[in-house]
Amino acid sequence: MPDTNQWFTETSDATGSGFALRVHRKLHEEQSQYQKIEIYETTDWGNLMVIDDCIMLTTRDNFLYHEMMSHPVLFTHPDPKRVVIIGGGDCGTLREVLRHPGVQQVTQIDIDERVTRLSETYFPELCKSNDDPRAELLFIDGIKWMQKAEAASVDVIIVDSTDPVGPGEVLFSEAFYRACHHALRTDGLIVQQSESPLLHRELLKRIYRDMESAGFAATRTLQFPQPVYPGGWWSATMATPMRAWPEPRYAEMEKIAGMRYFNRAIFDASLALPAFMTEE
Amino acid sequence: MPDTNQWFTETSDATGSGFALRVHRKLHEEQSQYQKIEIYETTDWGNLMVIDDCIMLTTRDNFLYHEMMSHPVLFTHPDPKRVVIIGGGDCGTLREVLRHPGVQQVTQIDIDERVTRLSETYFPELCKSNDDPRAELLFIDGIKWMQKAEAASVDVIIVDSTDPVGPGEVLFSEAFYRACHHALRTDGLIVQQSESPLLHRELLKRIYRDMESAGFAATRTLQFPQPVYPGGWWSATMATPMRAWPEPRYAEMEKIAGMRYFNRAIFDASLALPAFMTEE
Repeated sequence: MPDTNQWFTETSDATGSGFALRVHRKLHEEQSQYQKIEIYETTDWGNLMVIDDCIMLTTRDNFLYHEMMSHPVLFTHPDPKRVVIIGGGDCGTLREVLRHPGVQQVTQIDIDERVTRLSETYFPELCKSNDDPRAELLFIDGIKWMQKAEAASVDVIIVDSTDPVGPGEVLFSEAFYRACHHALRTDGLIVQQSESPLLHRELLKRIYRDMESAGFAATRTLQFPQPVYPGGWWSATMATPMRAWPEPRYAEMEKIAGMRYFNRAIFDASLALPAFMTEE
Repeated sequence: MPDTNQWFTETSDATGSGFALRVHRKLHEEQSQYQKIEIYETTDWGNLMVIDDCIMLTTRDNFLYHEMMSHPVLFTHPDPKRVVIIGGGDCGTLREVLRHPGVQQVTQIDIDERVTRLSETYFPELCKSNDDPRAELLFIDGIKWMQKAEAASVDVIIVDSTDPVGPGEVLFSEAFYRACHHALRTDGLIVQQSESPLLHRELLKRIYRDMESAGFAATRTLQFPQPVYPGGWWSATMATPMRAWPEPRYAEMEKIAGMRYFNRAIFDASLALPAFMTEE
């Protein structure tokens, strides 16, 4: 049993499991307008951000999640120029999106500016592209933004949200997906982080249903390792209004540098579904 | 922080991380001749086996590890008839191997008979093939068995060992791989569980080096999710004395029923290496 002074432990009632990281010290704690944000210095995983007692990211392993939330969907779209990130306040997804030279504008909309300010201090490597002239950072309600967005104005929407409890809950709803569908161009794509393939199977089914009801004709689920999230195995679900799934731009996957997990082989691997998922 | 009465937590000094499962109660504890073995009833993961304070398996997620330790190597071998499992006392790997109709004999060699006896009681579904006439269960030292094995008598060796500390340490050594190489037929294959791709990169490199020094000409690493092991992301390394890697028997992968993770797409996916591993 870890000494409570030396370990940060997140336990999940819903899954009956927990994950712990050994820490040197707490670097920061605050109650923002929206949530409690803590930053720890760990012994082996770099810095750790915790929101409302849930582990959000560490320096060591966030590359897995951020790369898989951005590159698969961007390489599946034929020519993404206009990208919107809902959530993603740590700016790690934004950094990955900006690696794509064809992207002309990325709007990141996180309701809580404090997440970004703390990321700039404690995860500066994730924020190094924030000054890119193509990046726009808004600190407002992402759902309202999406509801007012011009029809058919966006190529790719990345829903980089917290879990479907608290402030993130409304991002897992048919109404939100409907607003996204309206904002997307006809060949657009959305990707939503969709929790653990093993532990949150009902949620995954609900996401499929809700996306379908909202007008998305085709979906694909990506799976990838993410040690600090419950069960260490995570998923993201992509969807498009088009009936035919687009042909990914394989030839361009090796042309962008700086990725530590994603490559062409991992792209295909992430789309392979375990037997228990194909049966469902 | 979990209540120590309700959670079993394994923390790893080497990785600075830990994993916890909520438990109803401890079902059994004993000090065998070789190690401390505990069995818990968890709230959401079925039964849990712990050896020397390290989580070995749960009812809920062991299928991931057992399927990936057996099917990829068996489908890579052109015609596996004689299989040897070193370790694997819970019999989960044995059950998977026996799904292959071409396999004529499987010898499982675990030094600690108590692991198998407790698995029969608490994980009976893993032991349901133990009476198969093709199965032979030996409770002796696997290294000594391998050193005395007839040359070129085995098609596939599966090293289903504990971590490279304590009794399992000698199974991660050039000397052991040399004995395996001697026992394998010229087109034989070995697979060794090789820890976390993210957290044990030095160990993985050592395994490659040691296998090569022992005479194996080609290696391939498989990666797969395994929630209850450190970091939730695991690997196994296959090797063969042959210079050319064999063509997997893809056509037969869909012919065997009962798998919950493994299928043809997952086979290929498990061989995809993350960018940081291909660079190394």
